[in-house]
Amino acid sequence: MKKKGELVSFRPDIKVVDCTIRDGGLVNSFMFTDDFVRELYRTNLRAGIDYMEFGYKADRDMFDKSEFGKWKFCDDQDILDIVGDNDTGLKLSVMADVGRTNFKRDFAEKANSPIDLVRVASYIHTIPSALEIVEYCNKLGYETTINIMAVSKSNDSDLDDALELIGNSCVDTIYIVDSYGSLYPEQIRRLASKYLECAEKYNKKIGIHAHNNQQLAFANTIETLTMGVSYLDSTVSSMGRGAGNCPTELLLGFLKNPKYHITPILEFIEKHINMLREEGVVWGYDIPYLLTGRLNQHPRDAIQFTADKRTDYAEFYRYLYDKDSF
Amino acid sequence: MKKKGELVSFRPDIKVVDCTIRDGGLVNSFMFTDDFVRELYRTNLRAGIDYMEFGYKADRDMFDKSEFGKWKFCDDQDILDIVGDNDTGLKLSVMADVGRTNFKRDFAEKANSPIDLVRVASYIHTIPSALEIVEYCNKLGYETTINIMAVSKSNDSDLDDALELIGNSCVDTIYIVDSYGSLYPEQIRRLASKYLECAEKYNKKIGIHAHNNQQLAFANTIETLTMGVSYLDSTVSSMGRGAGNCPTELLLGFLKNPKYHITPILEFIEKHINMLREEGVVWGYDIPYLLTGRLNQHPRDAIQFTADKRTDYAEFYRYLYDKDSF
Repeated sequence: MKKKGELVSFRPDIKVVDCTIRDGGLVNSFMFTDDFVRELYRTNLRAGIDYMEFGYKADRDMFDKSEFGKWKFCDDQDILDIVGDNDTGLKLSVMADVGRTNFKRDFAEKANSPIDLVRVASYIHTIPSALEIVEYCNKLGYETTINIMAVSKSNDSDLDDALELIGNSCVDTIYIVDSYGSLYPEQIRRLASKYLECAEKYNKKIGIHAHNNQQLAFANTIETLTMGVSYLDSTVSSMGRGAGNCPTELLLGFLKNPKYHITPILEFIEKHINMLREEGVVWGYDIPYLLTGRLNQHPRDAIQFTADKRTDYAEFYRYLYDKDSF
Repeated sequence: MKKKGELVSFRPDIKVVDCTIRDGGLVNSFMFTDDFVRELYRTNLRAGIDYMEFGYKADRDMFDKSEFGKWKFCDDQDILDIVGDNDTGLKLSVMADVGRTNFKRDFAEKANSPIDLVRVASYIHTIPSALEIVEYCNKLGYETTINIMAVSKSNDSDLDDALELIGNSCVDTIYIVDSYGSLYPEQIRRLASKYLECAEKYNKKIGIHAHNNQQLAFANTIETLTMGVSYLDSTVSSMGRGAGNCPTELLLGFLKNPKYHITPILEFIEKHINMLREEGVVWGYDIPYLLTGRLNQHPRDAIQFTADKRTDYAEFYRYLYDKDSF
């Protein structure tokens, strides 16, 4: 596959999608202050970010509201309270998990909502349900994506079938999601090549959502970008579940489009991210995440290991290894 | 250039070079306890590491011995005190900096020394001096490498000339060194391709020494390895100057040769690296290093910024940016 773009130029089709509140919300149960979210919105505007994801459209009947901040549910009014009429170039996004959203009740007509983009997260065996949400939201007037999670666990022929199905839908963008942070550049380039073939055939765009378990989130993001992937997920200081995501500050350092500015992100880290860390919110690359990533496992055991403040890495590795074998 | 090897197989020509004491010594002035060094030696033996670098052969007349631990100087006797007769498969290495070593006085005949490999670190304009050391140590019976530092600052035609000169010498291995951690995978692949052409022409091997300023040390190491680079520098927990190096635990997670074992490294981190961190020794990826890396600058300002416990990243970025411009 031919390289798209050069290191000294830029591609105007690139879109940076800030997922700090949505993926970061997974480590603090979405308990962000309004001040934090408002400052992040202002930061994204100044930094030239293309999309800001506010959180999930989770079904209130399925989750106890007292256990989560409001960005687990993303009421239109809560978003409006932050962004006003959002008369800016920054588009707004929410994520809907297949099986965890009451999309027919909770999405208004696009004309009456501050949301621009609905991203549907799906495992490969629930693609038909994901497509139902996509078709519905598309009719309401939203842009849509399908994010195929845990792709490192899927086999090639299932993935081919899934891409064919998605290619024939009205979805705008298909995401490669390295949920377990287990993929090496060589592997993610092979995947990107497959997704980009589908994109070419069906006139879709391809996105990438990487995790940093093996310190490869940034590398995998820019490697696939170079091949033609154009929707790039990132979070400030890599805030996100477990080892976190591709750090926005690294990504903006790489992108050459003069619309992007790294300084507002640096200021946000200084003023707001450092405070979160001091308050005890924990995320980012660490040995336990490397181990689950290396073994292509869900990070939940590593999250628990970290929460328990354990450091018996070798014992933990034996446990993870045995769990999967024989 | 054709890919060498597959993800599921392994190449027996791969050598992992542990630089924890040598590059890590730059953050604690080589003040390691004998216990730490001995345990690292045992760990490397159990982990299947190929070379262990003990430190520098620095000239005692140039440095105040009271300010540095003994691994700044690497007397043969100090190494012998750790390794005994080293009747093992683990080879031992030291580094000599051009202009900072009294090599004619300080290297014994290989037959009388525990050292196997002498690595000569040189800027591109001091290659003739580096070659003088290489020729001398080669005659004494040592394996040798030349590590061309700060290659991200060199222009292509100087580098071509340097590689031609080195190719014609008796050196065994030539290292790509991303001293500032500024190179993206795309760039380091291009460099590797150039070095590997020289290696093919002159029957040399190529090594890689990466820094983690942009969280690319591991990615850049495995990307060039895939192309045919075979000497891979790493340090436990990435311990090394500034943002540190390619972490051994990530690298061993990638390598498929059954001789490599990650568990001893995990145990060493638990018992010895965590203690160093608790004692206040600081290294590893952080925002200031990302900024010097991104701007292709020496990390010294970032090291100072970190030592001063500053967090005004945006102000620091303006300072770095202005320093280099107009």
